[in-house]
Amino acid sequence: MDRLTVGIDLGGTKILALIVAESGEILARAKSKTKTGLGVEGIGGQMHKTAEKALKRAGVSWEAVERVGIAVPTSVDPATGDVLHAPALGWRNQPARAVFESIFEHRVVLENDVNCGTLAECRAGAAKGAATVVGYFVGTGLGGGVVIDGEIRRGRRGVAGELGHEIIRHNGKLCGCGHRGCVEAYASKTAFCREFRRLILKKGRKSVLSDLTSDTTFKSIKSSVLAEAYRREDPVVCKVLRKGAWMLGVATANLHAILAPDCVVYGGGVMEALGPELLPEIRRGLEAHLFGITPEDVSLRLSALGDDAVPLGAACLAADTANE
Amino acid sequence: MDRLTVGIDLGGTKILALIVAESGEILARAKSKTKTGLGVEGIGGQMHKTAEKALKRAGVSWEAVERVGIAVPTSVDPATGDVLHAPALGWRNQPARAVFESIFEHRVVLENDVNCGTLAECRAGAAKGAATVVGYFVGTGLGGGVVIDGEIRRGRRGVAGELGHEIIRHNGKLCGCGHRGCVEAYASKTAFCREFRRLILKKGRKSVLSDLTSDTTFKSIKSSVLAEAYRREDPVVCKVLRKGAWMLGVATANLHAILAPDCVVYGGGVMEALGPELLPEIRRGLEAHLFGITPEDVSLRLSALGDDAVPLGAACLAADTANE
Repeated sequence: MDRLTVGIDLGGTKILALIVAESGEILARAKSKTKTGLGVEGIGGQMHKTAEKALKRAGVSWEAVERVGIAVPTSVDPATGDVLHAPALGWRNQPARAVFESIFEHRVVLENDVNCGTLAECRAGAAKGAATVVGYFVGTGLGGGVVIDGEIRRGRRGVAGELGHEIIRHNGKLCGCGHRGCVEAYASKTAFCREFRRLILKKGRKSVLSDLTSDTTFKSIKSSVLAEAYRREDPVVCKVLRKGAWMLGVATANLHAILAPDCVVYGGGVMEALGPELLPEIRRGLEAHLFGITPEDVSLRLSALGDDAVPLGAACLAADTANE
Repeated sequence: MDRLTVGIDLGGTKILALIVAESGEILARAKSKTKTGLGVEGIGGQMHKTAEKALKRAGVSWEAVERVGIAVPTSVDPATGDVLHAPALGWRNQPARAVFESIFEHRVVLENDVNCGTLAECRAGAAKGAATVVGYFVGTGLGGGVVIDGEIRRGRRGVAGELGHEIIRHNGKLCGCGHRGCVEAYASKTAFCREFRRLILKKGRKSVLSDLTSDTTFKSIKSSVLAEAYRREDPVVCKVLRKGAWMLGVATANLHAILAPDCVVYGGGVMEALGPELLPEIRRGLEAHLFGITPEDVSLRLSALGDDAVPLGAACLAADTANE
């Protein structure tokens, strides 16, 4: 009998559960909306239900499941499985892994979501065959993951791979983290929206965004709306997104000076919607700042796994530990 | 009979050769001035003579030597042992390892000097016991090395660890590499001298540097002179060096967001001369930009091995490959 793994992406808005065979094949999927008000136990119960729905679709029961891997939108202490702070879920100092293990009655592997996404792209996606891979995931924020010789690097306290908070412009734009000049302050939907407010609301620039979205204060904006405005060559949207992509290219050049990875993968909602348009802009920013290596030796790719990357990576990790 | 290793630091100004026992003990040292005009073969012969002098001092012959490790001031293609470009030595596209092997009649391991220094500090110096270590070496330029799980990270084409060329201020100060805002453009003797020229020669600021050095155009300056001026609280020197240390702290914060190493070691001529004064300034810059980890979890140390670090690291590496 095949030993199955459940891989779950616990996001701030949705939960996605996969049932994964030993071969890596995805047998079934199930989704639900995250009820963030529920706390760790409540969310644990909700994830359990979502996984059960996916198991039913795969025609199997919990007995066939060996391990559970859960990806969370924060860093996890690798020693304890505790979550120190997860703003997207409203958690602080939670013994999340322990709680989930008692709910699932299975060993649970807990890992940062973007670390999982990068691992999955390395094992089965855009970076398949590469040993050392860096992942950037452009969404509300800018997440990152570092995989070295096929393994996620966690670093002290599990905080490695926080690539969105690399400072590439000392004293630059204010970031949500309180520092200035982080790459996330240029290359994330939060950064884009702040620029839209400044350019459209304060400076009075014309933009099709005003027609495309009912959110006239640009608090948050869908990636599909960004893509529509970009394809219509809206000058405000093109300027802001190209600058963001350029700065992400600067950060990628830095990663080459530091680690010179085999491959860099770009995913997340914004790249899903605008990857083919933005990747050349990222490369331009990179090539203008590359040190010691020629552009031909740099491999930049778009995510191949989409929404499956994060839960599949969580499942890979859980399967790895089952084999230890 | 003990199998000995020769470790050589081939610098732009001097050659330092060590004879190292299997235990890691340094049995003898010898030095000579680098004759950079000689080319790869001539320099190879000069290194061979310097090593022979050290062997004589240790009272042993070449027969006792198992391997030779040579550290060079550039990156080395790990596959071929070729050196693409070493400005300090005037080399371009040289099959350096092959040439040295024919001269030494021994297997030669060739590696970037700062990578070697970081490895030695990790194995036997300030970072002993740490698995993942980042090294910054502040001299004419700003060198870097990354050791992960006890091994040097070379990356694609051997260019990983070029930490001086991480961009921390997009569109900032011009760096010798042609880019703007590299940390080397703030935290290196080249950067300091450029600021001295700007502040003292152009802006007319008073400084004791004018009394302490005969080089009135500040083309280059000895670390001991910098230290003397800093200790006399010269306002120009203090301002420039503190800003450099702060920026090095920003770069160190970035390395924590990316890799979260167990330890960061600072060496090189400037840190040898002013380590206790500059380390608190580096820490201030770091703590103002740290993400996701508390200052107590960050370990910053001064190099413990001084000039021995680089050739000892080369010897360690050569000994490692002899055991493979």
